[in-house]
Amino acid sequence: MNHIYLDNSATTQVCPQAMEKAVELMTRVYGNPSSLHAMGFAAEQELTLARKQTASLLHAKPEEIFFTSGGTESNNLAIFGAAAARKRLGTHIVTSAIEHPSVLGCMEQLQKQGFSVTCLAPDSQGRISPQQLAEAINDETILVSLMLVNNEVGTIQPVADAAKIIFRSHAPALLHVDAVQAFGKLPIHPARMGIDLLSISGHKLHAPKGVGALYVKSGVRILPHTFGGGQEKNLRPGTQPLPLIAAFAKAIETLPAPEQSLPDMQKLCDTCRQTLLSIPGITIHSPEDALPYVLSFSVPSVRSETMLHFLSEKGIFLSSGSACAKGKTSHVLTAMKLPRPALLTSLRVSFSRLNTLSEIEIFASALQEGLHTLVKGAF
Amino acid sequence: MNHIYLDNSATTQVCPQAMEKAVELMTRVYGNPSSLHAMGFAAEQELTLARKQTASLLHAKPEEIFFTSGGTESNNLAIFGAAAARKRLGTHIVTSAIEHPSVLGCMEQLQKQGFSVTCLAPDSQGRISPQQLAEAINDETILVSLMLVNNEVGTIQPVADAAKIIFRSHAPALLHVDAVQAFGKLPIHPARMGIDLLSISGHKLHAPKGVGALYVKSGVRILPHTFGGGQEKNLRPGTQPLPLIAAFAKAIETLPAPEQSLPDMQKLCDTCRQTLLSIPGITIHSPEDALPYVLSFSVPSVRSETMLHFLSEKGIFLSSGSACAKGKTSHVLTAMKLPRPALLTSLRVSFSRLNTLSEIEIFASALQEGLHTLVKGAF
Repeated sequence: MNHIYLDNSATTQVCPQAMEKAVELMTRVYGNPSSLHAMGFAAEQELTLARKQTASLLHAKPEEIFFTSGGTESNNLAIFGAAAARKRLGTHIVTSAIEHPSVLGCMEQLQKQGFSVTCLAPDSQGRISPQQLAEAINDETILVSLMLVNNEVGTIQPVADAAKIIFRSHAPALLHVDAVQAFGKLPIHPARMGIDLLSISGHKLHAPKGVGALYVKSGVRILPHTFGGGQEKNLRPGTQPLPLIAAFAKAIETLPAPEQSLPDMQKLCDTCRQTLLSIPGITIHSPEDALPYVLSFSVPSVRSETMLHFLSEKGIFLSSGSACAKGKTSHVLTAMKLPRPALLTSLRVSFSRLNTLSEIEIFASALQEGLHTLVKGAF
Repeated sequence: MNHIYLDNSATTQVCPQAMEKAVELMTRVYGNPSSLHAMGFAAEQELTLARKQTASLLHAKPEEIFFTSGGTESNNLAIFGAAAARKRLGTHIVTSAIEHPSVLGCMEQLQKQGFSVTCLAPDSQGRISPQQLAEAINDETILVSLMLVNNEVGTIQPVADAAKIIFRSHAPALLHVDAVQAFGKLPIHPARMGIDLLSISGHKLHAPKGVGALYVKSGVRILPHTFGGGQEKNLRPGTQPLPLIAAFAKAIETLPAPEQSLPDMQKLCDTCRQTLLSIPGITIHSPEDALPYVLSFSVPSVRSETMLHFLSEKGIFLSSGSACAKGKTSHVLTAMKLPRPALLTSLRVSFSRLNTLSEIEIFASALQEGLHTLVKGAF
């Protein structure tokens, strides 16, 4: 398909290096890393190497990395695991209204089990203030779960400040950070930032879908949420999917350092922002200092799905909000108190290092064409 | 590596067709199946097709198939999901002592939550009798979990008889069957066999590691164990790993029909059995009517790990029991009441359609050589 792919926060194309690594481990080094023979040992070595490479991008120790099937499972493991391990210390949890459904879904479930959850409302930029968090925490708070970069608008949360507030509060709270949209794009140093648990995913950074990891700070104890053959130190059992894990590590190795890629992405994103702002009636929801991989905006008078369809016909792929919401009104933009017309016409472009300035130009003219063509029949 | 791989119950080599499909979905049709654009729709079509293909081998409806990250997750989802959905009807569960650790681990966890679990002991062939099950079931029994084919000895459980017993008992029990080692090897028709929930895995039949599925009979309700963006009808959220799922379906499509491959495997397995029996002191633990993909035996006086190492040096790969146990004494052979020397010297060969009769010959002579070489230094 000859196309322009601007939906990289939903998922990305697997890079050739990661694909080749996956093929190698599917067809040549295909052993079970738990098997006691040369083919098993070779697989185990690949697993050890992958753990090291994944840890290195977080300045973490390999033994702090636990591989999972992706961001959703990492979030589930972190939240249920922390709640189960700490429930004797308290039953209060703090999160925000703009978290990923896999965080909010766990919270809803924990509420049914008797936990109380404070859900902080963001400001119009999608930000939770340290002040809000300080007011929400009490002596019973055992977990704070905040995302580092919002998947729909790109807002960067001050999670290091959150860590300081938790520390000062003396609450028995762990800090869990959903870093699925931040990992590989923003420098992350969980130990320095005071993060206890951090979720990452492969398929947002050119690794295959089906693999992610949970960083668990040394000394922090959480309980498993699934049970089985003891893999991943009993925290996440099941035969490790080596082709995916090794491909994930290879994708990480292939990534330019976040510090290096950020200026280019900022340029791309700024160009897109300026171009969009030059189109009458478009409003941008992503704050100026958002991570420059995501740009959320609304167009005048054309419903999101109508515009997505128009652009898709031209081979230009973006989304209305998150892929997970699949057509529902965005809970993030709703929490940011956008007026209803803006909610119904919201669009999200999300970039990867494979996107170019000329793609942005083509996208912007197609969008303008769409506005001219579709606006008559709108609403 | 030039080698003889006889550890196919631990994991298998991915077949070229499945590998190529995975590559296609990593690099060309890489969309998120929840995305509302052509690349997302193409991914969704692949998902629909894969669900249909997976269902067809079970004579099931596509909507009865829920993709997971593998057998361990399928077992966890089935057991926790059934327990949560039915706990108002009762809190008693029946299983057997020779189940996979991912079943026994869930049971242990449910016991901590107040469920009572009856764990049936097998006979010396690794079989649970319908009589035993009938005696164990009571009005409070909400779940019976039995594996169709044991992963260490290949014993086939009479699960269809188990279903009849449950039906006659009028207990509110669902029947869950761990069919990870049976799927693709034995004809399985869950609807006819009276099975409500059935776990399968990809990497035991030449699909990549990291994908499996749970069959949930139409009309049977279980609750999710993980929470998120609503994928797989809210039962198993998380972006579907399309490269894996499509490769799984392709591996299924590539498989010869179980009815067709069984005679060949029986011949291979019988040859192996006869050859091993001709070596003095070897005892075979797999019953004659076991699934001919697994053969468990003990050698005289040489510890499992020592023999595995010797054979591995010669490029012949097998295992002592299951890969998941990684060196621990087999809980299956222990439950079958094998004498301790046999436990310490047990080995398992497990076949795939890629194995040949000449590989069996080479393996048998290497084993004999190992016995001559190692027996002096043993114990």
